[in-house]
Amino acid sequence: MMSPIISDLDKLTAHLAARGQRRRVAVVCGTDVDTLKAVADATAGGYAHAIFVGRVAETRQAAEGLMDLSQADFVDAADDTDAARKAVALVRNGEADVLMKGLVGSDVYLRAVLDKTAGLLPLGGVLTHVSVTEWADYGKLLLFSDAAVIPFPTPEQRRAQVGYAVERCRALGVEEPRVALIHCSEKASERFPYTLDYADIIAEGQQGRWGKVRIDGPLDLRTSCDAEALRTKGISSPLEGQADVLIFPNIEAANTFYKTMTFIVGAVSAGVLCGTTRPVVLPSRGDDAATKLYSLAMALL
Amino acid sequence: MMSPIISDLDKLTAHLAARGQRRRVAVVCGTDVDTLKAVADATAGGYAHAIFVGRVAETRQAAEGLMDLSQADFVDAADDTDAARKAVALVRNGEADVLMKGLVGSDVYLRAVLDKTAGLLPLGGVLTHVSVTEWADYGKLLLFSDAAVIPFPTPEQRRAQVGYAVERCRALGVEEPRVALIHCSEKASERFPYTLDYADIIAEGQQGRWGKVRIDGPLDLRTSCDAEALRTKGISSPLEGQADVLIFPNIEAANTFYKTMTFIVGAVSAGVLCGTTRPVVLPSRGDDAATKLYSLAMALL
Repeated sequence: MMSPIISDLDKLTAHLAARGQRRRVAVVCGTDVDTLKAVADATAGGYAHAIFVGRVAETRQAAEGLMDLSQADFVDAADDTDAARKAVALVRNGEADVLMKGLVGSDVYLRAVLDKTAGLLPLGGVLTHVSVTEWADYGKLLLFSDAAVIPFPTPEQRRAQVGYAVERCRALGVEEPRVALIHCSEKASERFPYTLDYADIIAEGQQGRWGKVRIDGPLDLRTSCDAEALRTKGISSPLEGQADVLIFPNIEAANTFYKTMTFIVGAVSAGVLCGTTRPVVLPSRGDDAATKLYSLAMALL
Repeated sequence: MMSPIISDLDKLTAHLAARGQRRRVAVVCGTDVDTLKAVADATAGGYAHAIFVGRVAETRQAAEGLMDLSQADFVDAADDTDAARKAVALVRNGEADVLMKGLVGSDVYLRAVLDKTAGLLPLGGVLTHVSVTEWADYGKLLLFSDAAVIPFPTPEQRRAQVGYAVERCRALGVEEPRVALIHCSEKASERFPYTLDYADIIAEGQQGRWGKVRIDGPLDLRTSCDAEALRTKGISSPLEGQADVLIFPNIEAANTFYKTMTFIVGAVSAGVLCGTTRPVVLPSRGDDAATKLYSLAMALL
């Protein structure tokens, strides 16, 4: 049976609530209001159980009144580094399902995740980041990579980005994800070295490397997401201007898209780290409670 | 006397209309409707006089009914290359003030502009592109560079980008332009080589290289344009979240911003080529009549 497509982020949380499996979330230093609100929402929705790792008294006090503490456990930690290590260990040992970042620096958090002997990164694995955004007129979720982790992807990292984004699309119910390899225009050119790798990746995609997908590029944002722009430019693309995934050339372009979408468009967004052995939620300092909730939901999917 | 600040693109065309100087625009192959509408508007506004360079019969027929042909001259050309060369020659010889692109390939057009003996590029000059955009909530025009010409700016090209954008700001009446050097975050880092050049450029700016300016970076889009985001992140910046200019690290980021603003935000935009001996308008194939008009207006300012 085909599962219905999850076409916006509220449908995502509704889907998790309907599925009714409560997953254990190890929250590192979950003392800020936005993290607590997100965890409270997921707990109230019946799909999360929180394990707060940090200074217990402080966390209890912060959480009091914001959530049902009967759905929470507490693990004491001496400091941020200790909290990150202990939370990672819980996930590693199967005592928690998902890792989530609260009020702790990304460097401390990621150091524990990336620890070679005690972390959550498989040997030789590529760690990358997939963002999800929705905006009113598009009618479906748009995934893109990588606004946060890999600065300048090598061809092998690029392949990993495609693979993870496709996998996330499938989890959202998109059977045949449409993947756009983005650049400034539709011409591959030596002026833009990234575009020279696109043809090989597209050929591999057409040969089934990532299952049933449609993949094309270079395309720009418009020819990826606007059927009319394709027609106007006289271009034919298997994506038909309805991309599910945008793979940006580098972090500078992807991060610009992320910031423009959240700040200027006001689009609701979420992010998920890919390539770890277990799901890891890596919100930004400036993310609001909704973004943190949806990011947690993407990790729980 | 301080001139009033031109805070949106309609004020720009109103300013030119009020100034009442009619400038001669050499239009290369001006046979497409959007170019003709833009030229017609500028002509009707009293600040342009068109010299159409191309196949005369064809151009006359296309322009008929769209504009007042008594405000137009026609120069015959055998083909696109010939038209581009002849139009550039008119501007070079002082018989026209501004060059504008119609239905002709950018390569053909730019080849004539960049011709070493007969073009419009000064010896050793840096050619770069400045875009202008407005969106409802910002309250003023936002300039950014470079979405179209320089792929990966060297430090010297970066300085030229700052200089040209500052000069365009001043023409718009901004006395002390606020310039943000953009990257993913506010930290300069060896992971992001562009950010390592920013400190020197900022120091030169503070020493007055570009006159009275405020310049800061790395900043991201949000800390450049949102005072509240600055406060939330606990950052102090002389721009105070009110940038007039965003200098993006490379064409991939700037082009992503341009496409997101025009396609998703629906922001009105314009573009101007900088570094030529005389103003050159370089619209994109997909630009509508309004964008072409405002781009012409920026060149006429």
